[in-house]
Amino acid sequence: MTIQRISILGVGLLGGSLGMAARAAFGAEIVGYGHRRGTLDKALENGAIDIACEDPAAAVRDADLVVLCTPVGIFPQLVQRIAAALKDGAIVTDVGSTKRSIVAAAEAGLPKTAHFIGSHPMAGSEKRSVEYARADLFVNATCILTPTARTDAKALRAAEAFWQGLRMRIVRLSPEEHDRRLADISHLPHALAAALVAMQEEASLPLCGKGFLDTTRIAGGDGALWRDILLDNADNLVEGLRRLRASIDQLEAMLGKKQGEELSRWLDTQAARREAVLKQKLSEVTPD
Amino acid sequence: MTIQRISILGVGLLGGSLGMAARAAFGAEIVGYGHRRGTLDKALENGAIDIACEDPAAAVRDADLVVLCTPVGIFPQLVQRIAAALKDGAIVTDVGSTKRSIVAAAEAGLPKTAHFIGSHPMAGSEKRSVEYARADLFVNATCILTPTARTDAKALRAAEAFWQGLRMRIVRLSPEEHDRRLADISHLPHALAAALVAMQEEASLPLCGKGFLDTTRIAGGDGALWRDILLDNADNLVEGLRRLRASIDQLEAMLGKKQGEELSRWLDTQAARREAVLKQKLSEVTPD
Repeated sequence: MTIQRISILGVGLLGGSLGMAARAAFGAEIVGYGHRRGTLDKALENGAIDIACEDPAAAVRDADLVVLCTPVGIFPQLVQRIAAALKDGAIVTDVGSTKRSIVAAAEAGLPKTAHFIGSHPMAGSEKRSVEYARADLFVNATCILTPTARTDAKALRAAEAFWQGLRMRIVRLSPEEHDRRLADISHLPHALAAALVAMQEEASLPLCGKGFLDTTRIAGGDGALWRDILLDNADNLVEGLRRLRASIDQLEAMLGKKQGEELSRWLDTQAARREAVLKQKLSEVTPD
Repeated sequence: MTIQRISILGVGLLGGSLGMAARAAFGAEIVGYGHRRGTLDKALENGAIDIACEDPAAAVRDADLVVLCTPVGIFPQLVQRIAAALKDGAIVTDVGSTKRSIVAAAEAGLPKTAHFIGSHPMAGSEKRSVEYARADLFVNATCILTPTARTDAKALRAAEAFWQGLRMRIVRLSPEEHDRRLADISHLPHALAAALVAMQEEASLPLCGKGFLDTTRIAGGDGALWRDILLDNADNLVEGLRRLRASIDQLEAMLGKKQGEELSRWLDTQAARREAVLKQKLSEVTPD
């Protein structure tokens, strides 16, 4: 499958970066949809898109690939508005941080002539607007694809080839496993960073060092965006918080019993587990 | 008071950086003590110290300023070993991350002819050895000094002038308030980062992104060092964990009741609080 025309619905940081990266990788023509004219103009200006559309149905016409990049809360209505305008064989994917509800809604709402493949490119920043878009945002990052029993095998391979073309590492997970693991490794850390800021007394904050600022960096994200993610994955998040509380209880027991050796071993174990992941990540970096 | 000779007991990342910075700022002669010859040789080699001593008493002789930079667990025996060798009017300070126990032990163990001023320069890294030492480690960072009713006012001003000479911002707190606030803003985040790694299933770790790695960066520190800090400040830490659990409970209640607006507002509030601190920190940066 040749990708000649890509439609990007939502041109923020991710959508804008995707436009830049996809044009560079495939020479494709990039059509961008957004509901604010100002954002579309900025996206045209910094080369994120070639054509701007204020109507999503018009934006997906003749597109080989459609990528949903708006906040996930808008996906259902977006799917409804584009369904009839998609060309036969079009591949539709997304960049949403949760997958069960998105994949179910897309599979139910799109025509059988189009193929939906859930994607979660794990790239981004707490900066969200198209001004911060850059063509290399996805390089060396992981993209999780979440096929189901209904997924077309050829379309899945085409979607994988697309993300690989942006130099991403591909992982396949079911939507259920994706949401469970991402709750632990991404959504819970975010919620926890916010809780860590929430429990601080005002007078303690100016005493913070680089460690606190790093630990809470992800708490700087957009509240509405993260509300959607956390609510959509609430069941897994609550289960993750249960296990986090168990870890905190274990720590507190060691403190209470002054178990220095156990505490030191526990801290070293966690440091080593993190270090191993970091090393693995660094080893996967491909040279320019 | 002129600082001509500084004795640094323990030449790791902090001690080594302190040697480099103090020589640059005051032209002082730097005497380093360490119990490993190899570390002392490295410190001599990279210019962290001018003279190496394997005996702490010898290292503090004729020093105007003595800085305890070893792990805090060693402080009591170190104080005992240097007490008789300190010159009259010598100022002794430290870089320990907790203050109540250190200040009490130092005030009890040092002769009346010397002056102890508890210090906590909030600089460092998860890298600990002298190879990573650098003269600008302390620039623009905060140094908390913890005077007590017994503190000599002139010695306090001299200690403040020393840290200010390294271009640090000075904050005065009682040892009690220091330990209470630092439990929340530094020790608890560290413990929490470790707990966040601890609750992860092995198969989830390779799916982590930059957010998780940033959030857990401080968990990469040395287990024995942090064990000492966490155990020494266990009472404040347990109180902090109680408030953290309340924040997590609040979050979980919003998730359970699907309170989207409240959740979004709560997340935005924490993002704004963090942003305000970050802006404040950046505004305090002095140009080179």
